Amino acid sequence: MKLKIKQNILMEHLNYVIKGISNKNLIPILNCIKFELTNEGLSLTSTDNEIMINTFIKKDEIECIDTLGNIVVSGRYIYDIVKKLPNEIIDIEEVMDSKIYISTKNSSFNLNCNLVNDFPKIDLDESKNPIILSQKIFRNIINQTIFATSTQESRPVLTGLNIKINGNILECTATDSYRLASKKLELKQTMDENVNIIIPTRNLNELIKLLSDEDENINIHIFNNKIIFKFDTIIFMSKLINGTYPDTSKLIPNEFNTEITVNLKEFYNSIDRASLLTNEADKNTIKLNIDNNQIVLTSNIPEIGNVTEKVQILNMNNSDIRIAFSSKYIMDALRVLDCEEVKLLFNGEVKPIIIKNPQSDDIIQLILPIRTY
Amino acid sequence: MKLKIKQNILMEHLNYVIKGISNKNLIPILNCIKFELTNEGLSLTSTDNEIMINTFIKKDEIECIDTLGNIVVSGRYIYDIVKKLPNEIIDIEEVMDSKIYISTKNSSFNLNCNLVNDFPKIDLDESKNPIILSQKIFRNIINQTIFATSTQESRPVLTGLNIKINGNILECTATDSYRLASKKLELKQTMDENVNIIIPTRNLNELIKLLSDEDENINIHIFNNKIIFKFDTIIFMSKLINGTYPDTSKLIPNEFNTEITVNLKEFYNSIDRASLLTNEADKNTIKLNIDNNQIVLTSNIPEIGNVTEKVQILNMNNSDIRIAFSSKYIMDALRVLDCEEVKLLFNGEVKPIIIKNPQSDDIIQLILPIRTY
Repeated sequence: MKLKIKQNILMEHLNYVIKGISNKNLIPILNCIKFELTNEGLSLTSTDNEIMINTFIKKDEIECIDTLGNIVVSGRYIYDIVKKLPNEIIDIEEVMDSKIYISTKNSSFNLNCNLVNDFPKIDLDESKNPIILSQKIFRNIINQTIFATSTQESRPVLTGLNIKINGNILECTATDSYRLASKKLELKQTMDENVNIIIPTRNLNELIKLLSDEDENINIHIFNNKIIFKFDTIIFMSKLINGTYPDTSKLIPNEFNTEITVNLKEFYNSIDRASLLTNEADKNTIKLNIDNNQIVLTSNIPEIGNVTEKVQILNMNNSDIRIAFSSKYIMDALRVLDCEEVKLLFNGEVKPIIIKNPQSDDIIQLILPIRTY
Repeated sequence: MKLKIKQNILMEHLNYVIKGISNKNLIPILNCIKFELTNEGLSLTSTDNEIMINTFIKKDEIECIDTLGNIVVSGRYIYDIVKKLPNEIIDIEEVMDSKIYISTKNSSFNLNCNLVNDFPKIDLDESKNPIILSQKIFRNIINQTIFATSTQESRPVLTGLNIKINGNILECTATDSYRLASKKLELKQTMDENVNIIIPTRNLNELIKLLSDEDENINIHIFNNKIIFKFDTIIFMSKLINGTYPDTSKLIPNEFNTEITVNLKEFYNSIDRASLLTNEADKNTIKLNIDNNQIVLTSNIPEIGNVTEKVQILNMNNSDIRIAFSSKYIMDALRVLDCEEVKLLFNGEVKPIIIKNPQSDDIIQLILPIRTY
């Protein structure tokens, strides 16, 4: 393998594949990046066996393709070296004894390579009918739900995001069994077969770092045990979590005793302040009741002090509610709603709280109350 | 105590005193801020017994001084509360049972207070002949030397910055016994008595966060066991380290066998890249020699690979040098020199390396080589 490439171009693509390498991985080959140089261009691949990231640099972005070939080299070292090189043309050349020689005018590095055959082989098939979405919309769906996934390994299915597709409706659901976030989206296409899969949270967190803010598309190919995302120059593969995701459709009631509308930012800031006098050991409990057309939030840490916050109610059908909840969970839910006002729905102090945009049913945030009264 | 004050003004001053509180302090009173309200204004004080920070809000910056008095309250809680309150007028009032009541239109907090008499009493005297400097210049002196202080508690005097004054010459010195940074400055005043003190590094690091980038003055009052800095609205007290600072004046030779001038940025970047193939366990060793009017830097990690970097020499009296050093120490030294070119001075492979601005002897950076040849 021998080529010449501009530092900024190689760096851009190393920035993509470096995210496929876990720093904690004890298997050396999984800390590597595979370079494959063909007449079409340079392909870079990384994998930690849970995810795989591939990016392709087309031949017209490469200064000179001299000798074709493949090498596998430590990802962290090649990344740091290219990052610190000046923005000049870099020579990369495979030399004797499975080494690569990386050089610019004043710098020259020899790096030991790993065996190309030891690098995991991953099938990057395409499905017949991929889902096509704008990257921006797909990133939003993930951001608005993923925070509610569980970090507890005791129920592995809850450590991922559930994606269901029925016909042309895609629904993302995340729950840690204390709260649930769900978002529905109408696709421009109709799927022949229903989809019901679970994608690991950690893998999606790496994926969304690579997605752009623009309206460019992402193509999603779903298989039995893996999912492949194609966008820009990137192919991103994630394994799926085996198991059956709990049916959450019946958790969200259709009728509520109490419906209250408040300004989202005011409500968020009040909870944020009230949370200063809560303890994590005590589940960051805040109490809510209604007084004189205002929401009254209270919390306290006995040794330190107490707080009372008031939030103007904009709309209310019934003032009969007192309930307690985790400030952290409510703030997580409010943070992802991009609306000015927010609707709070209650069915009594032991029933779930629903938080939503008053104008839309697309996103539903459900939070279980904390029993204190 | 009872007053009304704008949130942004109180916040500005809480930002100063919060730096006097260590989060690790197990003695509750040392996590507190003392509020003292007089007819002249509001004084805020914090201390962890090693440093003390005081700031004063003049009466004309306070909306209303109602009842004079003193309170002592948890620094972290009052800081977080005021930070999250909207930029409105805040009411602060001492209420029954040694509590304070902090309120705005929609928020009200009760915080338990500590006993005013338990708060450490600290003498904030003035010396007759304070040193007067611009804050910017003083901050530069500290930044250019402090990184070379020791983090090893085995020789406490080396964990601080040495300040010596003889007549009108102020000299700052830091050393961890492997390297030394020293800066001289001509004062506009002459001191009657010689000064030779050691200020703890940690305390100076807190001080420089408070210093401005502007040319406003700082007044420095030196006592036997403490030093007091006065600037803007702030009084900052630090304890001094007891003990005799080593005499470093004879460490820096007057004559050198080899003098080399290079571009600072090029030399820094080359060392930065060469350091990628060094180990901390191996003291980040880089070898330097001269070849064909170029500095040649080499380093390697046997399992990973090796690197060669070349740096153009601008000026040289003698090419007879080969030496090894810690890349970290050289980079620390180069980072604080604000000049375009840098002069490297050598007396052979086991003698100290001196790095300096070719135009000035004010800052001297000395680094001991590593014996490898």
